[in-house]
Amino acid sequence: MLRVGVIGTGMIGQDHIRRMTSVLAGVTVTAVADVNVDTAAAVGSSVGARVHESGESLILDPSVDAVVVCSWGPTHEQYVLASIAAGKPVFCEKPLATTAEACLRIVEAETAHGRRLVQVGYMRRYDTSYRALKAVLDTGQLGAPLMMHCAHRNPSVPGFYEKEMAITDTAVHEIDMVRWMFGEEITAVRVLTPRRSGNGGDLQDPLLLLFEMADGVLVDVETSVNIRYGYDIRGEIVGENGTAALGSLSPVRVRLGGQAADPVPVDWRERFLGAYDVEFQEWIDALRLDGRPVGPSAWDGYAAAVVSDAGVAALRTGERVEVALAEKPKLYDVEVPA
Amino acid sequence: MLRVGVIGTGMIGQDHIRRMTSVLAGVTVTAVADVNVDTAAAVGSSVGARVHESGESLILDPSVDAVVVCSWGPTHEQYVLASIAAGKPVFCEKPLATTAEACLRIVEAETAHGRRLVQVGYMRRYDTSYRALKAVLDTGQLGAPLMMHCAHRNPSVPGFYEKEMAITDTAVHEIDMVRWMFGEEITAVRVLTPRRSGNGGDLQDPLLLLFEMADGVLVDVETSVNIRYGYDIRGEIVGENGTAALGSLSPVRVRLGGQAADPVPVDWRERFLGAYDVEFQEWIDALRLDGRPVGPSAWDGYAAAVVSDAGVAALRTGERVEVALAEKPKLYDVEVPA
Amino acid sequence: MLRVGVIGTGMIGQDHIRRMTSVLAGVTVTAVADVNVDTAAAVGSSVGARVHESGESLILDPSVDAVVVCSWGPTHEQYVLASIAAGKPVFCEKPLATTAEACLRIVEAETAHGRRLVQVGYMRRYDTSYRALKAVLDTGQLGAPLMMHCAHRNPSVPGFYEKEMAITDTAVHEIDMVRWMFGEEITAVRVLTPRRSGNGGDLQDPLLLLFEMADGVLVDVETSVNIRYGYDIRGEIVGENGTAALGSLSPVRVRLGGQAADPVPVDWRERFLGAYDVEFQEWIDALRLDGRPVGPSAWDGYAAAVVSDAGVAALRTGERVEVALAEKPKLYDVEVPA
Amino acid sequence: MLRVGVIGTGMIGQDHIRRMTSVLAGVTVTAVADVNVDTAAAVGSSVGARVHESGESLILDPSVDAVVVCSWGPTHEQYVLASIAAGKPVFCEKPLATTAEACLRIVEAETAHGRRLVQVGYMRRYDTSYRALKAVLDTGQLGAPLMMHCAHRNPSVPGFYEKEMAITDTAVHEIDMVRWMFGEEITAVRVLTPRRSGNGGDLQDPLLLLFEMADGVLVDVETSVNIRYGYDIRGEIVGENGTAALGSLSPVRVRLGGQAADPVPVDWRERFLGAYDVEFQEWIDALRLDGRPVGPSAWDGYAAAVVSDAGVAALRTGERVEVALAEKPKLYDVEVPA
Repeated sequence: MLRVGVIGTGMIGQDHIRRMTSVLAGVTVTAVADVNVDTAAAVGSSVGARVHESGESLILDPSVDAVVVCSWGPTHEQYVLASIAAGKPVFCEKPLATTAEACLRIVEAETAHGRRLVQVGYMRRYDTSYRALKAVLDTGQLGAPLMMHCAHRNPSVPGFYEKEMAITDTAVHEIDMVRWMFGEEITAVRVLTPRRSGNGGDLQDPLLLLFEMADGVLVDVETSVNIRYGYDIRGEIVGENGTAALGSLSPVRVRLGGQAADPVPVDWRERFLGAYDVEFQEWIDALRLDGRPVGPSAWDGYAAAVVSDAGVAALRTGERVEVALAEKPKLYDVEVPA
Repeated sequence: MLRVGVIGTGMIGQDHIRRMTSVLAGVTVTAVADVNVDTAAAVGSSVGARVHESGESLILDPSVDAVVVCSWGPTHEQYVLASIAAGKPVFCEKPLATTAEACLRIVEAETAHGRRLVQVGYMRRYDTSYRALKAVLDTGQLGAPLMMHCAHRNPSVPGFYEKEMAITDTAVHEIDMVRWMFGEEITAVRVLTPRRSGNGGDLQDPLLLLFEMADGVLVDVETSVNIRYGYDIRGEIVGENGTAALGSLSPVRVRLGGQAADPVPVDWRERFLGAYDVEFQEWIDALRLDGRPVGPSAWDGYAAAVVSDAGVAALRTGERVEVALAEKPKLYDVEVPA
Repeated sequence: MLRVGVIGTGMIGQDHIRRMTSVLAGVTVTAVADVNVDTAAAVGSSVGARVHESGESLILDPSVDAVVVCSWGPTHEQYVLASIAAGKPVFCEKPLATTAEACLRIVEAETAHGRRLVQVGYMRRYDTSYRALKAVLDTGQLGAPLMMHCAHRNPSVPGFYEKEMAITDTAVHEIDMVRWMFGEEITAVRVLTPRRSGNGGDLQDPLLLLFEMADGVLVDVETSVNIRYGYDIRGEIVGENGTAALGSLSPVRVRLGGQAADPVPVDWRERFLGAYDVEFQEWIDALRLDGRPVGPSAWDGYAAAVVSDAGVAALRTGERVEVALAEKPKLYDVEVPA
Repeated sequence: MLRVGVIGTGMIGQDHIRRMTSVLAGVTVTAVADVNVDTAAAVGSSVGARVHESGESLILDPSVDAVVVCSWGPTHEQYVLASIAAGKPVFCEKPLATTAEACLRIVEAETAHGRRLVQVGYMRRYDTSYRALKAVLDTGQLGAPLMMHCAHRNPSVPGFYEKEMAITDTAVHEIDMVRWMFGEEITAVRVLTPRRSGNGGDLQDPLLLLFEMADGVLVDVETSVNIRYGYDIRGEIVGENGTAALGSLSPVRVRLGGQAADPVPVDWRERFLGAYDVEFQEWIDALRLDGRPVGPSAWDGYAAAVVSDAGVAALRTGERVEVALAEKPKLYDVEVPA
């Protein structure tokens, strides 16, 4: 039984605690911490977990085998670094840290430690459809991949959502996904600004992002974050001989009123609920096996941050921006399964 | 943590043990038993469970809160009755028992006990697609249901599969599903025998079953158990104003060689893996909540047996056969969620 | 240029005249006749066709190479027989005649004439989807056909529609289609009556028809004639190794308001407009080639009538009714392309 | 009956002659001409048309009401100008002329004539799917259009196909289509070059074209001209509230060997056969109505040429290239139906 301490007991933290106590096997939540002490106390008592006054204290708790960080983004760096310092595996919700420099400090700390401890919460790698897509790609039957067309559509976004967030918060999932899908880095980014949707007020929405991969694969990503009709994630890989696309996962088809219709998910929870479960179960299983995570690494978190920065620069300047990554430590060369 | 004892450690029993130890939350396997003592010992030691020499002994083990019966069909009755006698909840894989009479004895024993203990392993009620279909039906937007078209297709069946099994083993899933879907009993059965497939040797395959429901809904079920191309489960409800059908759950769509193709599952494991997980998690959760199962009941197991018998008679005689059920005890009147 | 005379200038006759004057090649309408003399005069003058006072007079007009019969059903027999007597090709809208006996008289007259002159208006054989379905079947890749599932759905029917018309007017299209699809006769019919739709008043709607083909293929046909949501024609052939179904012919897929939806045709005109055009063009082309039609024959019209009668008897009695056809004249043995 | 003379009796010319003599209504081919006199003679005699020694002579033939130009591209300008000079309607296969300047000369000649005579052969406007897509857009239910994603895929191209042809020959169909779809001009073009397919030898294939429309709609077009699996045309309009995409026009769905598959057209003939028929029938009908074509105009041909030139420049330079059109004559302001 893996004993987990959770830092951050807000909405996402509570959801992961629910997942670890009510859905998944082989795990127990033994400790919680939050800047909001009352929330931490309430959540902790509901699942019988010890409540810590600080994340650092939780990390050092001997009843905590592994740490889950769901706190406010700006605090991620300190808790991940503290976990590494304590030699404990840590699952950090995205982003790994709020700047590329901070991500790199984590990479360097983990590299100095000499063994992977960090996993970042990019859950698309655990989605059934993306995995089926990658499985088709990996058979080689499409020939070499040449392009990928993606769309990331949200029915709406909250009022504090700003235009850069379409890259740093929304398309960052595609950034991680294509790096994983094609097994190579993004080398340059362009961002185009189509006619603006009236649904988003002054927000520059939608965007068309263009990613160049190291081998020349060209990825286009539409982000539409106020498109009303639903939460819709699309992806099609164009190979030399054919294409493979995310399938239609409609549980039911209804014929009524002149239409044959499939429901569209209302939000990301509905669409990716299963992926979150798989993500955590595989993280738990890997840690129980040999204490080492095999999912998205600190390097992946760092690379996503650098590409996001390039994307934001491309959006601001209208120019093609190259991605400049640090040298990749050998620690991250190992081929990982997920 | 629910402590479960598993009787029967063959293929299905091992799969449920894997599920309870590696996939689901809130459960531990504390005891196992099997007529094959070596298998029981091996499985038991791999999960740290006590090995019993008999199912009856396992049922009486104080470290067993609830029993799962996965043994050979003819032994189901005795273990379920023993569990009821011990006042312990019991999950019995289908069939509940091998004859309608035996099922009725279980119904009577449970009724005498006065509180539900028995759940039968009809897992379609837990499938995402069937649940979505029922959700659409229950909105009333289709109007009253009038018909349902079903198909149950297997790529192949083992050599010992006999023609009656198309009803008792294969279509029995549809028998339970339509009773649950429409919330009423099947009152008559016809079985038609189309041209025989050469893939099944002398087996009468496919069949077309016709079920009349109490309110007049007419259900047709194709069973094709040697259809090679894959495992395919179809269902469409025809209402007054429209229809609703099981959707297409294809994770990926591949365009290659002149075709745009969706994969078809290879077998029932691939198709219903998730439903088994949900079935067991909900069983565990219900028992932890108040010790009472809310899934398919002994009455459901009994009704399925009676309808199966009617189907076998209809197949043998070519005639329409009416279904004669005993009076339904009040215990089973409660509306159950799943 | 084929010179055609049209008997019956009501809605269907006018539509075929429009087709022959504005859509198709190689044909001109030279004569019209109708019991309603005013309508005939108006239609005739609009296309420059001579107006006859009787169908018989039109048939004998030397400027008429071929006859199209679109008049009231009870008059079909006399006009078709008169055309045969005149040695002129005749296209007769369904039904060929209103009784099986009358159809047989036509078969006998044509057989006595010694050469095919008659074509009956079963247009599904000309539909792109049905032809694609037959092409797949004819490759043999499905193995032998064993079953076919069909649905024939209308959003609504007029007030004069009676329950037998679900067979004689609606399912008769499937009767002709399966005879053509499988190249063999229907030998027995059953009709089942599901729960009645409230949309059709006292009408027994829907029905489930069951056809046994000579080789054992079992066909089920749902007729739902008040199903509101649209005009929907479905068909799936179940073979030994796989299935083939009418595809989805949606020109557009719209994602709006929580749904991804394909439009459903509103009526048979929208669904089968193209099939009518192909039907007539091929009829014209065949006659211009050697004066002989190759589409649905008088025998097909006769067989449809006999099967319809059996269906009506099956509906009335609730019994399985065998189909008793006369001996098929050699004239109809020739394999026809459509 | 419209009397048509056809200049150019090669493959495309013969196909249009077949269409006008065997498929469509209200037209007859009275004259033909070709640089290859033997071909012209053979084709002419097969349909009973007079054979001219030159296109100019055919245009002046009093038995020719309207001209169809299917000759080699570099000759289009002269025949179209000669038709205008003769005051005769002329249907010119794409391109209208081989340079933007030549197209502009035609525009100016027609403008001087004062009435539309020229129609250019952009047939996508006549395709059922594109029309259904435009019909949805025009309802306004999507909100304002913001983006359009397109793909234009060919299984292979002939050896003489050069990289610019992906724009001038292939994507030019999308250029015309989006101008028609959104009712506005393309103002700038970018061309990106993804990783190169090994199927096309040295050819730069695929490409990603990006068109900016006057109102800000951003269009991306993938051209893949060696993608083996089939001929596949895709298009999805992204609006403020939802999207609409070209539907799936599969006539049949086959379940075999682990897949549920829809056929993909093998080439553009299969995909757009119906559109060519509609295009010509509507041209014929319009000319018979009042001698004036209502389809794609000389201005459309000119604009397509200018945008193509911009695309070629963008491909060569890697830069965004603005589209500089001449002022649009009032003659072309009229809203046209197709």
